[in-house]
Amino acid sequence: MYTLYIANKNYSSWSLRPWVLMRELDIPFEEELVPFAPGTSSSWSAFRAFSPTGKVPCLRDADTTVWDSLAIAEYLAERHPDVWPADPVARAWARSTTAEMHSGFPALRTVCTMNCGIRVRIDAPDEALRKDIARLGELWNEGLTRFGGPFLAGATFGAVDAFYAPVAFRIQSYGLSLDADSMAYAQRLLERPAMRDWYAAALAETWRDPDHEDEARRVGTWLQDLRTA
Amino acid sequence: MYTLYIANKNYSSWSLRPWVLMRELDIPFEEELVPFAPGTSSSWSAFRAFSPTGKVPCLRDADTTVWDSLAIAEYLAERHPDVWPADPVARAWARSTTAEMHSGFPALRTVCTMNCGIRVRIDAPDEALRKDIARLGELWNEGLTRFGGPFLAGATFGAVDAFYAPVAFRIQSYGLSLDADSMAYAQRLLERPAMRDWYAAALAETWRDPDHEDEARRVGTWLQDLRTA
Repeated sequence: MYTLYIANKNYSSWSLRPWVLMRELDIPFEEELVPFAPGTSSSWSAFRAFSPTGKVPCLRDADTTVWDSLAIAEYLAERHPDVWPADPVARAWARSTTAEMHSGFPALRTVCTMNCGIRVRIDAPDEALRKDIARLGELWNEGLTRFGGPFLAGATFGAVDAFYAPVAFRIQSYGLSLDADSMAYAQRLLERPAMRDWYAAALAETWRDPDHEDEARRVGTWLQDLRTA
Repeated sequence: MYTLYIANKNYSSWSLRPWVLMRELDIPFEEELVPFAPGTSSSWSAFRAFSPTGKVPCLRDADTTVWDSLAIAEYLAERHPDVWPADPVARAWARSTTAEMHSGFPALRTVCTMNCGIRVRIDAPDEALRKDIARLGELWNEGLTRFGGPFLAGATFGAVDAFYAPVAFRIQSYGLSLDADSMAYAQRLLERPAMRDWYAAALAETWRDPDHEDEARRVGTWLQDLRTA
């Protein structure tokens, strides 16, 4: 049995990626949620108990530790079908697109930090954020058109969709606007059973991390907090 | 025949990764070097002619474009031996370590930008840089001890070594100090035939990008410029 270490569902976009992938592909695992301690260094110390980088997510499989989201996807791809598309051309595209999120989209990731339960309106996205959003729309449309949808690289939800799943929460939280086909894809992501479960759990969390909360409030006009706890 | 698009050998650490991997594994390719235009937006426009992200490296294989260094490694791994270790445990470690570099080590990558031809002494590394260097030593020692060396995941040079190859140039350029085993590993990287060829070509380049040059000079005490052109 796999063990997947994650942090707060409301905040941890990196945790969401392998979690939603494994849930959507029916790969059984035990979830170990270790919440962020407010303040980076203490989270780092706590996370070092199970993760060599002091970061989440981290997958344990018996004696093997896989400590990065993309390495987890590749580890699972060797053992389970549908992580990547079967077609080599679609697979190369899915891997490039997944890796682009893994090291890219810096403005989207730092300005619109994942915070599932809040609603903030960004009135004037800066140039870097506008550029990231434009690239996102270009990439999503390319995949949906080229491989026929309804997922990014074809008919099946896979790692490439899992890597963009946090973007769907960001679009919802910050009211970001993309073209109609991209908005419909984001909506499809939000409606996946695993995404609904994650969202419900995020809303029910009682932890509030001041740094994450301040980051989100700073970037626009505060609208709403939907968290129930 | 593959075509590998890269930028300036003196500066482009991302370009170096697949280039040195393909050269060390004897995978034939045509090199297309497109130098950075001074100023980001114009490079982006020029690079968009061949790369969907406007970034390098980018691999073309007939009609297939693979536009990220890690996706290129996986693409090659499906077609050529020795990109990843044959042993599953070593392979999981190599992939985690490679992915950690792909999205991590932010201080090392932004403070010590790759600039093969210069020598700058960093007198007082800040906390973030010290932490990245400590993690680097920890990771390298773990790999060398666990898999027996002389490379990070065992006897053969592979993608994980290629991803840390730019670090060897950074150690050399900025006089960074690690433990003896790590320094010996960095030296082994510098002595690979492909690394020697890259270094010689970097020294012979005539392009000077003011942003890259300023970044390097700002971080410490200027010592030397070994570029010959």
